[in-house]
Amino acid sequence: MNSEPHPWVVIMAGGVGSRFWPASRAARPKQLADLFGQGPMLRMTSERLLPVAPLERQLVVTGEILSQAVADALPGIQPENILAEPVGRNTAAAVGWAALHIAERDPDAVLAVVPADQYIADIPAYQETARRAVAAAREQDAIVTLGIPPTRPETGYGYIERGAEISDGVFDVGAFREKPDRETALGYLADGGFLWNAGMFFMPASLAIRELERFEPELLAGLRSLFGDAARPAAEVYPSLKSISIDYAVMERTDRVRVIPGSFGWSDVGSWEALYDHRGERSSFQAGDVIEIDGAGNVLSAEGGLVAVVGVSDLVVVHTPDATLVVPRTESQRVREVVDRLRADEQEELL
Amino acid sequence: MNSEPHPWVVIMAGGVGSRFWPASRAARPKQLADLFGQGPMLRMTSERLLPVAPLERQLVVTGEILSQAVADALPGIQPENILAEPVGRNTAAAVGWAALHIAERDPDAVLAVVPADQYIADIPAYQETARRAVAAAREQDAIVTLGIPPTRPETGYGYIERGAEISDGVFDVGAFREKPDRETALGYLADGGFLWNAGMFFMPASLAIRELERFEPELLAGLRSLFGDAARPAAEVYPSLKSISIDYAVMERTDRVRVIPGSFGWSDVGSWEALYDHRGERSSFQAGDVIEIDGAGNVLSAEGGLVAVVGVSDLVVVHTPDATLVVPRTESQRVREVVDRLRADEQEELL
Repeated sequence: MNSEPHPWVVIMAGGVGSRFWPASRAARPKQLADLFGQGPMLRMTSERLLPVAPLERQLVVTGEILSQAVADALPGIQPENILAEPVGRNTAAAVGWAALHIAERDPDAVLAVVPADQYIADIPAYQETARRAVAAAREQDAIVTLGIPPTRPETGYGYIERGAEISDGVFDVGAFREKPDRETALGYLADGGFLWNAGMFFMPASLAIRELERFEPELLAGLRSLFGDAARPAAEVYPSLKSISIDYAVMERTDRVRVIPGSFGWSDVGSWEALYDHRGERSSFQAGDVIEIDGAGNVLSAEGGLVAVVGVSDLVVVHTPDATLVVPRTESQRVREVVDRLRADEQEELL
Repeated sequence: MNSEPHPWVVIMAGGVGSRFWPASRAARPKQLADLFGQGPMLRMTSERLLPVAPLERQLVVTGEILSQAVADALPGIQPENILAEPVGRNTAAAVGWAALHIAERDPDAVLAVVPADQYIADIPAYQETARRAVAAAREQDAIVTLGIPPTRPETGYGYIERGAEISDGVFDVGAFREKPDRETALGYLADGGFLWNAGMFFMPASLAIRELERFEPELLAGLRSLFGDAARPAAEVYPSLKSISIDYAVMERTDRVRVIPGSFGWSDVGSWEALYDHRGERSSFQAGDVIEIDGAGNVLSAEGGLVAVVGVSDLVVVHTPDATLVVPRTESQRVREVVDRLRADEQEELL
């Protein structure tokens, strides 16, 4: 039915972070954690894109120390489809490396660049939107982002100001907007012309390379030196690369960017509290082996064991075999204080 | 200094129970759980009595399925000092078996019978009281119990009504009283003549045997058949033994019972909430590897891992590698509801 060639999926899995301690650790950051009791988020991301691009067309860019865990999380992935960065150099380098790598194998490739650690509730709607974005990127030789119609005055996301409609459901981008304050966010929400920047973008590999060449020639030259007969090792090249996001490097400078609005229950799952939005019909969010008696408003997560709560409300309770966290749901960002304490106490094995 | 021969300690470790789930399990009941982060309660009990009786004079009566765990908890104990009951038959059988066993080895032995799962804060005071009880039991050929001067109108304990002073600090027993209602308990507290029954008693082995012979001759005959040239195996004898407590069988019937009042920070540690009394200088009870930030009134217990709590109060939080419990401190007896649920769900591995 769909005669379009498959795109190449590039899953950005370099993230570190401690907002999901103890489920996430240095050696197993959020994208490798099993926050929903449905396997690592990376695997959820890969699987929901399988109808868009088969596993042999999915690349993961990650850190060297995570590459084995990435391979374990994605059974069947080819080793050459894991690009292991010796050090993190932000997203422009990651996208550029993946684009060059894929362009070598398929010069006409269209890339679908997605973060490894987002949640999507309505997977069929998402897949349909992704297919439209691939087609638009190819047909218009454009960088197509997905924009989420906001449902609340969120101050934790960047926004995209929608411009004129260029083709059916595909809009020009007026501007990218930084995370707003609450008043500004309320204005965006009321205006209706602003979308959440979901950090997913679709573009021909050749365009990605061209725009990087144009805006960050030195970065691209560094990445190019990883290829060819006189290829230099990544460990030698990477540390000297400029650390800049793909947003700053390309998206906010190029005139070839478009946005497709799409509602598919997207969430970047930024904190334990955010999981509460994914509780479905229940009065609490539950993942893993959970017994909840006479409770509500909780976020309950069990991995490698059981969480049993009785008569408590509005708590985050997370069990892992070697650590348990309890914090009020609305203060879940205070997990950082625990991580800071562990660091101060040099309890490295728990970080 | 002390020319008295050592007594023989009999540690009653047959208990089962689920009030300390998930720290206690069927295969590791309370007496084998590490509730204080100081090792199994059984070991704490044995160690605090070492100055009274060396390990070779300490016997443990326990269930057959626990006997290996008992041996593991008490490194150095001789295998013949663990009496493994094939089935539980209450405390009269356990005391009788131990008394016969010890009398064979030492006919003049004085027994110190103590539960394995109590907590004592002031160990020197306890040891001194125990020595006095041993001496009184020997000199007066009596069954000497320890009575704790009550500090609150506790309805969860039995009481001992003190009678006339027989010798220095040793009193006759007026009566044993069942667990009272609150009004009665308030009366006991005001009266000053009532003591908590701590379930610890001291007596010559020969007297224990004599009194059992007098009040429960069939039970004693059954126990005697475990010894001698035609000894029958415990697995054959035990199931037919009468199940009766030593209190009903002997203490409440004999005219040879005495009580020594003693204050040494005794607690039978009946619930997670009870541990709160042992928080010392802290605002929360903590055992094991605990991080508590901005919290108070909690009972925090970690075994094989870390408990981290932020901004929560008046909770019980227990971490074990395969299960975590969270319940309000004043509702900690509701752990039973979790255990019931596990039983209904046939999650035997967590029971």
